[in-house]
Amino acid sequence: MKVLLIGATGTIGKAVHARLAQSHEVLTVGHKDGEFQVDLQSKLSIQALFEKVGKVDAIISTTGMAAFAPLNELTDEQYQLGWQNKLMGQINLYRVGAGFVNAGGSITLTSGMLSEEPMVGSASISAVNGALNAFVKAAALELGDSLRINTVSPIFVKETMEMMGMDSSTGMSAANTAVTYQAAVEGVMTGQVLDVRDFV
Amino acid sequence: MKVLLIGATGTIGKAVHARLAQSHEVLTVGHKDGEFQVDLQSKLSIQALFEKVGKVDAIISTTGMAAFAPLNELTDEQYQLGWQNKLMGQINLYRVGAGFVNAGGSITLTSGMLSEEPMVGSASISAVNGALNAFVKAAALELGDSLRINTVSPIFVKETMEMMGMDSSTGMSAANTAVTYQAAVEGVMTGQVLDVRDFV
Ligand SMILES: NC(=O)c1ccc[n+]([C@@H]2O[C@H](COP(=O)([O-])OP(=O)(O)OC[C@H]3O[C@@H](n4cnc5c(N)ncnc54)[C@H](OP(=O)(O)O)[C@@H]3O)[C@@H](O)[C@H]2O)c1
Ligand SMILES: NC(=O)c1ccc[n+]([C@@H]2O[C@H](COP(=O)([O-])OP(=O)(O)OC[C@H]3O[C@@H](n4cnc5c(N)ncnc54)[C@H](OP(=O)(O)O)[C@@H]3O)[C@@H](O)[C@H]2O)c1
Repeated sequence: MKVLLIGATGTIGKAVHARLAQSHEVLTVGHKDGEFQVDLQSKLSIQALFEKVGKVDAIISTTGMAAFAPLNELTDEQYQLGWQNKLMGQINLYRVGAGFVNAGGSITLTSGMLSEEPMVGSASISAVNGALNAFVKAAALELGDSLRINTVSPIFVKETMEMMGMDSSTGMSAANTAVTYQAAVEGVMTGQVLDVRDFV
Repeated sequence: MKVLLIGATGTIGKAVHARLAQSHEVLTVGHKDGEFQVDLQSKLSIQALFEKVGKVDAIISTTGMAAFAPLNELTDEQYQLGWQNKLMGQINLYRVGAGFVNAGGSITLTSGMLSEEPMVGSASISAVNGALNAFVKAAALELGDSLRINTVSPIFVKETMEMMGMDSSTGMSAANTAVTYQAAVEGVMTGQVLDVRDFV
């Protein structure tokens, strides 16, 4: 399959790239890095990306920014970042990208376990993830069999925890996290929130 | 208790008002109607409301607009309505209102079952509801005992279904829906998504 991987240069994206490249043609997209560039916060930028890339069999997003900060310190701008970047950016990836996915293909977004298992500081990210989870469940009802849509819900990635100086023993490696993205692309499910712990 | 009810003039709000007024002092707020007016889309308007009203023991929101439309017809503006009105409007109600709730008080928002049980046309509303559900779960972690925050998740209200010419047999009356808001105000729970079917 021809797989367009947005966020390919990130912690999770690199591992998804490494795993999928073994059996698929993966086109890597970053914000600054990668073979192609896109700014998910701009619909025009997403449109330009697909005009360059053309049709694909699967789109994967392993990107999305939202602010992590104490509830009572979160600013308007930090809330907006979550709505505009991780939430609406990925919804716009669906809205623009759907027309460039071959019949029977799939779109896989990324949310995260903080919606169900929040922590201090996660209110904005939790909200964004909860929105994405509900969005794919609802959107799938209107897509039938021609286009599948799912979201992967990672737990904390070990590499990220180490970068942040946290104890990483409760995390999951990026390589193991990548397994779920492969399942989303090669499987038949749609409208699902894929908990990475169910796939390793 | 002194209860500030925003959306008091709406289908659910009127029933919540009728129920709570039996044992509490309820201040009614609408957009155009009610004793007080507010536009939840404006933080300044929320601030002005609380400067007029002063301290309360509970804030309830039975308001929030989001667009219902086929997935592939939803416009940028329709998505924005959901993020700005029902989602960020209610989050801003928390952000501004928290400082005006007496110790031990509560804030009760409204989401809805479309996040968990979507239907054709609900993608934007489902996302908004999913965000609100996750938000209260996360926010409660940082509020401790001094301020409770919950969201009521109504199913379709019979009166609304009748207004829309739908068969209302699967809906719940506004009066029965109001029971859950009373439980949220008088109870001790926090960080909960209150399914109205659990309370009647
Ligand atoms: N890591 C974790 O522990 C964890 C846990 C749960 C959920 N998640 C979620 O998983 C996703 C990826 O996380 P990550 O840690 O792998 O992220 P990351 O290492 O920070 O990588 C971010 C990726 O997104 C790209 N990017 C940045 N801004 C962009 C924009 N405006 N438009 C398009 N692409 C953009 C980056 O490209 P450049 O390299 O070119 O800048 C990079 O490829 C996020 O949604 C995150 O919330 C992560
Ligand atoms: N009804 C249902 O079947 C159902 C089911 C599930 C969830 N819900 C949710 O429950 C909530 C209330 O629904 P409803 O059917 O009772 O609504 P409704 O009858 O349309 O009432 C809306 C209320 O909100 C007020 N309002 C409108 N715009 C506002 C703004 N910008 N700022 C502040 N207040 C504003 C209105 O005031 P004015 O009267 O002054 O304009 C009115 O009091 C919504 O979040 C809805 O999504 C409803």
